[in-house]
Amino acid sequence: MSEEVSLSLDDVRRLSIDVLKAGCLSSEQAEAIAAVIYAAQRDECHSHGVYRLLGCVRSVKEGKVNPNAVPDVVDHAPAIVRVDAHYGFSPLAFERGKPLLVEKARKLGLAAMAINNCFHFSALWPEVEAISEMGLVALAMTPSHSWVAPAGGRKPIFGTNPIAFAWPRPDGPPFVFDFATSAIARGEIELHRRAGKAIPTGWAIDSEGNSTNDAAAALAGAMLTFGGHKGSALSAMIELMAGPLIGGMTSAESMTFDEGVGAAPCHGELILAFDPKVFLGGDAAPHVDSAERMFESIVGQGARLPSQRRYEARVRSEAHGVRIPKTLYDDLLTLLPR
Amino acid sequence: MSEEVSLSLDDVRRLSIDVLKAGCLSSEQAEAIAAVIYAAQRDECHSHGVYRLLGCVRSVKEGKVNPNAVPDVVDHAPAIVRVDAHYGFSPLAFERGKPLLVEKARKLGLAAMAINNCFHFSALWPEVEAISEMGLVALAMTPSHSWVAPAGGRKPIFGTNPIAFAWPRPDGPPFVFDFATSAIARGEIELHRRAGKAIPTGWAIDSEGNSTNDAAAALAGAMLTFGGHKGSALSAMIELMAGPLIGGMTSAESMTFDEGVGAAPCHGELILAFDPKVFLGGDAAPHVDSAERMFESIVGQGARLPSQRRYEARVRSEAHGVRIPKTLYDDLLTLLPR
Repeated sequence: MSEEVSLSLDDVRRLSIDVLKAGCLSSEQAEAIAAVIYAAQRDECHSHGVYRLLGCVRSVKEGKVNPNAVPDVVDHAPAIVRVDAHYGFSPLAFERGKPLLVEKARKLGLAAMAINNCFHFSALWPEVEAISEMGLVALAMTPSHSWVAPAGGRKPIFGTNPIAFAWPRPDGPPFVFDFATSAIARGEIELHRRAGKAIPTGWAIDSEGNSTNDAAAALAGAMLTFGGHKGSALSAMIELMAGPLIGGMTSAESMTFDEGVGAAPCHGELILAFDPKVFLGGDAAPHVDSAERMFESIVGQGARLPSQRRYEARVRSEAHGVRIPKTLYDDLLTLLPR
Repeated sequence: MSEEVSLSLDDVRRLSIDVLKAGCLSSEQAEAIAAVIYAAQRDECHSHGVYRLLGCVRSVKEGKVNPNAVPDVVDHAPAIVRVDAHYGFSPLAFERGKPLLVEKARKLGLAAMAINNCFHFSALWPEVEAISEMGLVALAMTPSHSWVAPAGGRKPIFGTNPIAFAWPRPDGPPFVFDFATSAIARGEIELHRRAGKAIPTGWAIDSEGNSTNDAAAALAGAMLTFGGHKGSALSAMIELMAGPLIGGMTSAESMTFDEGVGAAPCHGELILAFDPKVFLGGDAAPHVDSAERMFESIVGQGARLPSQRRYEARVRSEAHGVRIPKTLYDDLLTLLPR
């Protein structure tokens, strides 16, 4: 087993902020991003934890991402908050827009936040989870870069297009899912290629449109959506809702915008918030219970709720801190000021 | 080839209204249901066309469905229309609530319609398509009866839980999808059982939770969702959003409510409408074009858009009418007054 370093969660936050500031991000940007990295490391989502700091700092160096962006929050329409992220990373834009989104949803019953011109930073679950902490139901989605072919096609058009959902629960953390509509994360195919391993059938096709188990051929061809034509339809919906509907780029347009730099996707993001108290009025309790009975009937038969593993990790990390590979820790230290 | 009868689309509508009225549905209910049957028969969705009249009339006879229900439309909250269908079929409730939903979405940017206490009638595409005809984007979902096991489980909890989406297009019919989150329609498994045919792996499990190719064992066990744990998560979202969030039953509760009668599922329905004109203001045209380019890049590589087959059928039916099996036609005639 390779050597590891133990860090407290406070260490994780401080290290993240220090690395990001040293990487020329403003204090506000660094703190918002560090909060998301902290949450991911705590929940043992390693690819979105402190490891992500390396890519984040590199993206800034590549010159596409604005490290000092100050997001503008606009009260765009009665049920719509718009946030112009000004080509910064997404966490600060989300954080700045959230209070108005929550206020609108509580007043109207539901509301939307459209984030424009942001660079993709991380998973969507920290965002839907943050909204559910306010007692609201949340649904979020974004396009990415055009790596995924539509069902029946062979050319990549769609992004990995994640969709995330959160439902607040009375006792304990919310019901949350967050998944890519691609069959698998692009990074997984990359890992298989590096390891010289075959990829399973169903992940991708080669540039001729034929099913392939060769990771390099897959990366040169197109990824597939999960769930065949249904997953493909869902991915198209995410393109439309978090792209043209909110004045953002589609995944294909974002790929063109990248100009081959290979930076994080620049895109829009659509976040919907629903207030059960407005939907249900004084009648909420039996329906909250009904949702709880559904969760119990899932867990009670030995199936898992989508974020269960993450919440178990959270409990461990909050008690004992986290462990990261020493090589990663050393790489991060090189990014700090001497 | 079995004998067929040619009908004009007018014949389809008239026949549907006559059969429904003879089956004791009120004129308003009959006309709203006939409009949906007409659309399905026209688009060659045979299982939702005039064939559906047989089940519709039978459901009324079984005493669960209120054939004279007059839906109540309530302006529940600034962004929420509620419609109490009073245990009638869904089409009239939808039709009555639609104008206020559209008005709210145009004013606020987005709005929700929650239909309560309705009996499932048909596919959701006629509803999202009707909203897109008003220039709005629509998303609709409903629970059904608990026939589907969650990923990793073996007991049925979820319904076949359809989700439908429509995006208006400037020239021609909208981009529409409408799919069950189960791997397959329950009726397909039933057809395999009757024909003594094996079902493909991935459709269902037996009552022990083992994968099965036996249709009868599948019907006694549980269906599976499409797309593994991702489809399962989506199905749970539909349960929550179109169930507890709007004060409706989950699929398990609806199954209990049915008391073994085997009627159509009684459930709520959530329909969201988004106005691109409000989201985009005067800036809409380039983004509408961007969506069109995405559609072109799908079709241009030989893949199909989700409703393409249905729209092709529509063109045929509008030119030449429809053909239905003579046995079905004769069965329908027996339901008319002598």
